[in-house]
Amino acid sequence: MKSIDKFYSAVNNGKHICVGLDTDIEKIPEQLKHSDDPIFLFNKEIIDATHKDAGAYKLNFAFYEANGIEGLKSLKKTIEYIDEDIFIIADAKRGDIGSTSAMYAKSVYDYFKCDSVTLHPYMGYDSVQPFLEYKDKLNFILALTSNKSANDFETLPLASNEWLYQKVIKKVNDWNGQFSNCGIVFGATQINQLQENISLIKDLPILLPGVGAQGGSLEEVIKLFNQNQLTSYLINASRSIIYASNGKDFAEKASEELIRLNAEIANLSSTKY
Amino acid sequence: MKSIDKFYSAVNNGKHICVGLDTDIEKIPEQLKHSDDPIFLFNKEIIDATHKDAGAYKLNFAFYEANGIEGLKSLKKTIEYIDEDIFIIADAKRGDIGSTSAMYAKSVYDYFKCDSVTLHPYMGYDSVQPFLEYKDKLNFILALTSNKSANDFETLPLASNEWLYQKVIKKVNDWNGQFSNCGIVFGATQINQLQENISLIKDLPILLPGVGAQGGSLEEVIKLFNQNQLTSYLINASRSIIYASNGKDFAEKASEELIRLNAEIANLSSTKY
Repeated sequence: MKSIDKFYSAVNNGKHICVGLDTDIEKIPEQLKHSDDPIFLFNKEIIDATHKDAGAYKLNFAFYEANGIEGLKSLKKTIEYIDEDIFIIADAKRGDIGSTSAMYAKSVYDYFKCDSVTLHPYMGYDSVQPFLEYKDKLNFILALTSNKSANDFETLPLASNEWLYQKVIKKVNDWNGQFSNCGIVFGATQINQLQENISLIKDLPILLPGVGAQGGSLEEVIKLFNQNQLTSYLINASRSIIYASNGKDFAEKASEELIRLNAEIANLSSTKY
Repeated sequence: MKSIDKFYSAVNNGKHICVGLDTDIEKIPEQLKHSDDPIFLFNKEIIDATHKDAGAYKLNFAFYEANGIEGLKSLKKTIEYIDEDIFIIADAKRGDIGSTSAMYAKSVYDYFKCDSVTLHPYMGYDSVQPFLEYKDKLNFILALTSNKSANDFETLPLASNEWLYQKVIKKVNDWNGQFSNCGIVFGATQINQLQENISLIKDLPILLPGVGAQGGSLEEVIKLFNQNQLTSYLINASRSIIYASNGKDFAEKASEELIRLNAEIANLSSTKY
């Protein structure tokens, strides 16, 4: 299946939760820590327990890079272990001048064989373009993020009477005209801005971090999307799923939490507002 | 020597050229390609030939990541091979929410043991803060870059009557107040903007890409810095040094080009304008 088709297959089947594998050696259950590759073993058990219900897996590259070459081996093994029809996001937040971005794209798409990536917009089109050349992939560009300091720059008002992040979304819409392989990252904590810009983001796949630990409300997001017949979205949940328990039942509890979230979304989606 | 002291030791001794190790397997001399680790071997010979004259080495992480785990092994070996008193920049252009940026900082500073990193400003202070906690390091934040699409966002006029990149520089000045371990990336191709903002960037170390292949003029940059008694800068040169020759004499030619650039800077610096 083409990478981008995996995305649409998931969201069209009501699978909107992206399981974030932000796997931290400090946080995994004790009994795994004595194996050869505890990070991979943890991921493997989480994947075994959740793959039927996950809309996607998101690999937070930082957590693997922190362990150096061993960490990247765990990352590679994890990606190879995931069923080939499940959408995989490289949450790597890359972005550089064209010739360098081409190398990052080669790493993420040719070497790690992910289906999707997250990208910084700051350096503009030519920093994103080498990723867009992979026409079957899906490239999520940061628009408005879920962190507090998003206000430092992302929400600055421009002389053109719009916010910086709105300008980014408009540009992403332009870039998307070429191969329809762009999306945006929009923090679920930013519900008012999400509502205000819904017509601007309507035609773009959306990746939403920030539900749960960071304070975003699943109910408000789903309600808004339903009211606007918007279905091309993935909501990321990392800690709330993978660390649902830190005992021997961690994989089972992860699965239960994912199923609970799917049911909540299904329920909210069938509600008439 | 503390990381940041390596930077000041270099620039105070007139070593302003940062040798960019953007090593591409496609571009290195044929005779190296049959060794176990051609990338490391190439870097080793370049370092042997240039270490006495280099102000810093800049490792462009993308070029190593493109080769996957083998590439990262070459990267690690290269960093370990560089003399411990020479300043090493991880040109990795990272940036994410705080807890994730902390993992990237761990990778770049604890695992790879670099002295410095390049960072994206888009997500604001909390995306940079975990790097700043490494008080002896030097964190270069992207201000105005050398690529054409810098105009997509970086030079947008804000409602506050300044450009976005100017706002970034102002914020970096604020952040720098804490531990004096921030700098900026400013493209050498943007000479007019460099001149216009010289008083704003005066107290910040500057990393300048874009001289040479990208079209920035060394003479204009040095002239401007001299007129303003500004000495805390590194000018990056990658391809013009490391690919000065693609024959057996590549390391010798790299050294010659570096010495030529150092002499040109010394000459320009002693000129009265």
